Amino acid sequence: MHAFRSHTCAELNKTHVGQTVRLSGWVHRVRDHGGVLFIDLRDHYGLTQVLADSDSPVFAGVEKLRSEWCVRIDGVVKARDESLVNPKLPTGEIEVYIRDIEVLGAAQELPLMVFGDQDYPEETRLRYRYLDLRREEMQRNITLRSDVVASLRRRMWDARFREYQTPIITASSPEGARDFLVPSRLHPGKFYALPQAPQQFKQLIMVSGFDKYFQIAPCFRDEDPRADRSPTDFYQLDMEMSFVTQQDVFDTIQPVMQGVFEEFGGGRKVDAEWPQISFADAMRWYGTDKPDLRNPIRMQDVSEHFRGSGFAIFARLLEQDGTEIRAIPAPTGGSRKFCDRMNSFAQKEGLPGMGYIFWREKDGGMEAAGPLAKNIGPERTEAIRQQLDLGVGDAAFFLGGKPQAFETVAGKARNVIGEELGLTEKDRFAFCWIVDFPMYEKDAETGKIDFSHNPFSMPQGGMAALEGDPLEVLGYQYDLACNGYELVSGAIRNHQPDIMFKAFALAGYSEDQVRARFGGMVNAFRYGAPPHGGCAAGIDRMVMLLADEANIREVIMFPMNQRAEDLMMGAPSVPTNDQLRELSLRVIPQE
Amino acid sequence: MHAFRSHTCAELNKTHVGQTVRLSGWVHRVRDHGGVLFIDLRDHYGLTQVLADSDSPVFAGVEKLRSEWCVRIDGVVKARDESLVNPKLPTGEIEVYIRDIEVLGAAQELPLMVFGDQDYPEETRLRYRYLDLRREEMQRNITLRSDVVASLRRRMWDARFREYQTPIITASSPEGARDFLVPSRLHPGKFYALPQAPQQFKQLIMVSGFDKYFQIAPCFRDEDPRADRSPTDFYQLDMEMSFVTQQDVFDTIQPVMQGVFEEFGGGRKVDAEWPQISFADAMRWYGTDKPDLRNPIRMQDVSEHFRGSGFAIFARLLEQDGTEIRAIPAPTGGSRKFCDRMNSFAQKEGLPGMGYIFWREKDGGMEAAGPLAKNIGPERTEAIRQQLDLGVGDAAFFLGGKPQAFETVAGKARNVIGEELGLTEKDRFAFCWIVDFPMYEKDAETGKIDFSHNPFSMPQGGMAALEGDPLEVLGYQYDLACNGYELVSGAIRNHQPDIMFKAFALAGYSEDQVRARFGGMVNAFRYGAPPHGGCAAGIDRMVMLLADEANIREVIMFPMNQRAEDLMMGAPSVPTNDQLRELSLRVIPQE
Repeated sequence: MHAFRSHTCAELNKTHVGQTVRLSGWVHRVRDHGGVLFIDLRDHYGLTQVLADSDSPVFAGVEKLRSEWCVRIDGVVKARDESLVNPKLPTGEIEVYIRDIEVLGAAQELPLMVFGDQDYPEETRLRYRYLDLRREEMQRNITLRSDVVASLRRRMWDARFREYQTPIITASSPEGARDFLVPSRLHPGKFYALPQAPQQFKQLIMVSGFDKYFQIAPCFRDEDPRADRSPTDFYQLDMEMSFVTQQDVFDTIQPVMQGVFEEFGGGRKVDAEWPQISFADAMRWYGTDKPDLRNPIRMQDVSEHFRGSGFAIFARLLEQDGTEIRAIPAPTGGSRKFCDRMNSFAQKEGLPGMGYIFWREKDGGMEAAGPLAKNIGPERTEAIRQQLDLGVGDAAFFLGGKPQAFETVAGKARNVIGEELGLTEKDRFAFCWIVDFPMYEKDAETGKIDFSHNPFSMPQGGMAALEGDPLEVLGYQYDLACNGYELVSGAIRNHQPDIMFKAFALAGYSEDQVRARFGGMVNAFRYGAPPHGGCAAGIDRMVMLLADEANIREVIMFPMNQRAEDLMMGAPSVPTNDQLRELSLRVIPQE
Repeated sequence: MHAFRSHTCAELNKTHVGQTVRLSGWVHRVRDHGGVLFIDLRDHYGLTQVLADSDSPVFAGVEKLRSEWCVRIDGVVKARDESLVNPKLPTGEIEVYIRDIEVLGAAQELPLMVFGDQDYPEETRLRYRYLDLRREEMQRNITLRSDVVASLRRRMWDARFREYQTPIITASSPEGARDFLVPSRLHPGKFYALPQAPQQFKQLIMVSGFDKYFQIAPCFRDEDPRADRSPTDFYQLDMEMSFVTQQDVFDTIQPVMQGVFEEFGGGRKVDAEWPQISFADAMRWYGTDKPDLRNPIRMQDVSEHFRGSGFAIFARLLEQDGTEIRAIPAPTGGSRKFCDRMNSFAQKEGLPGMGYIFWREKDGGMEAAGPLAKNIGPERTEAIRQQLDLGVGDAAFFLGGKPQAFETVAGKARNVIGEELGLTEKDRFAFCWIVDFPMYEKDAETGKIDFSHNPFSMPQGGMAALEGDPLEVLGYQYDLACNGYELVSGAIRNHQPDIMFKAFALAGYSEDQVRARFGGMVNAFRYGAPPHGGCAAGIDRMVMLLADEANIREVIMFPMNQRAEDLMMGAPSVPTNDQLRELSLRVIPQE
């Protein structure tokens, strides 16, 4: 017989009755039923009930066992009484009478119980992660993550992509966030950097003629920690293709993502239609570039109904340039109580409030209620109702001003309305592509033009487009939103050095600056670069959605805490003087 | 039609004749055949011959093309004349008459030609890696690497392993080599380290109850560069299992490795028998713990034949403790010329020389030739011949002294003899497990006892074994050798804190020191650790063997040069003052 086990703890059933078996695992729970000791023996695969009665020669040994001791038992499989069969457990038909027992690893008193649902502070969970990870939910989350990543790989291979690994110790390339630096011992005073993303390398792979690349790529950003962000490293499904249009990238990645959500969504509905929504429309309709399409509410411009109306605040607002009145229709939200609650919500978000109208039955007919309706009168109110396609029992909320000033709150209000009214569908994954991002934005304070997103994207219209107003230039750049989160981001790249230099010039960068910062890639483009594009999908976010977790640390095996520390391993730590000397570094004392 | 291509450059054949197609790729080669321009258009998948004659409206455009320009062409597929069919090319039956052409990416004058076999200095190749990678051999090596890694993953999944990612920004843990450090911005004066291997994490994964782990794991060691070693990061197939013996690990990993070598060995023979050889036997028989078993030569102890013999040097040597005479049999090496050449080889390696005997025909009988034979006389010579099972035309070489002093040279001599005599089989992968490594070794100078390999291995015999002479203790530790290279290394781990502290105590480490260095793991072992073991296989080495390359940089897409620099990306580089300030660091000026 094998030294440790003949079966796992999930394998035994009626067909094994009478057999002598060997199991290894952890003592999940001990119950003493009047002189009979029942133990749930747990391994990665499942639980098996093993037992010893007080007559048994092993009883004394079994009696010593405590939670989370790791043990091997030999025993005989017996059928449970019909009445004691546990149909929820794969091994619920049997139990194992212990004949021999060996303690493989004893356990001290536990700082954290594996059995049961007790909550522990995150610091405790992370410090004793090896115990925390034994809990059922963590086993499920972490195996889910592994299975999702494996499935992504299989699907990318099936789409004829190959995985190529890119360097992890490489050059600093300020792409937005802060680099982690690695001092070089061989080159005193010089530093490597960990890649924020393999952006430049994957583009170089295309220039190298590899045609289709993907990688489950570790990415590193030295950012201040946040609940939904790892403060050090995180993983992306990174991909790139040559000789493609934006639509080709969509057609390639949709089946991969959709397939993974269908495979691991646990029966939740996965949309097969992924609409393409321009950035401008997304902001107009949803107040965000990562809309939650499970929520059917679409905002509308209702400015014309307020222009010159009796509602002076809006009427006066509209006299200013660039202002607008936006309506958030709220079907079934037609009660004063709900409308007032939403008004307070807007106030909490820092707005003066949110005007509303709601429609109720009156004398067999319909009445528009709320102060706004009175101010603008029945005709305008009715025109608004018709535009928004609302009726009795519905409401509409109104925000006015410059869209940039109210859109974020409007987007949040839309979410809250959708949630509170039960309009936002549960158990569904709704996707949409956000396209046509503006290449540039103007800093509100300095008036300076800068890239609004990725400086490497190809401007729509190429060189010609860059001759006009930069703020009008759209990029071949896109995000995939799912249930209100950004899941994927990508672009068709600017592979032509002259267009790239021009694009950077508009944002105030000289050719020398571009060469200094992105020299590796820009040089390569001078030697026959193919048109190419791709995207990157956040693995952590994907697994969080699938596992229905709100904290990224629930889907990472060994995460840092929120202060970017690993308390279990003791990182970061003070280096030895020898280490610092070898790196030609001195630490500046803190005041 | 698609914006860039209707087919790849490897797809068109006779069935496409008459079709209008669109291809994109690079100008591999241009030939001017009297007014007709032939272009080999190349993409990742293959080559297609496209052409334009001087009457064609596109001729002027085609004439401008230069090597490595990236272009799109539209054209009509025509069958080649029977006599011009190229059977070696998948597209050799056809050619494409260009109707339209678009330059997608022009190229400057090339520092490195993609077409042809010209050699370039490594610095040029690395600086322009994106051109170097377009060459056929590099495309082959890098896709091979990708396919090997994919196959390893598939095989590990099939063996019911899951891949789990371990942290890359983590704690310093001196495991032998030097760590790369990463300064922490949030914790001034503290540093993270990049993992030399996920050793502690994979053991923690076992303690966390995950049972079977693998990872294609990036590993980081700040070592001085060498031809067969990456100076920064490299990849291992890292795996670990719970509740296993050494034999279980062998039975798990052999099919994976053997399968990969069969899949990618290009028809070379892959041994299915993997003998287990103790470390002591390996040193005795092969003079190395990574023997090349394609070479049938096995060395033997022939001391008894020299003890008290007329060959005074050896006879006197044997009077000292711990000395021995080792014979390297050399079948078919029986010529003075060969024997003298091997003697010079030994002298070049720093030994006084290598005694030999060779056997030749004389008067229909056999004669033992060489000075050694004369000195020890015919009886001893014959006894040696019989022990070594040699005959006419064969030779034997002899080395004497303390085995540690001559074994390395003996091992090299065995390699050279095998090579020169054609005894070492080509086109074969021969594997063996080296087992029973000693846990400890004594420093020749200080006399101090230290771990000879991995301090985390379980000593054979457990705690009891540690009560005796440390130098007699063997570990459950193993290597896999293939064709003279170490391919895999692993161990059954010491999972019991008391045995671990005792094992470290023998090497002079206090409990506090062990806790300080390996606290993460040692703490975990106090909470019910399962017996576990595993191994790690070097991906780069594996691909080097399969690709038949001697330099690791031939199988890595973007390697560092031998001074650990990336000339293409400009790494390492001088950080900005802001970056240093944020990290609370100052660079010590060099003298």
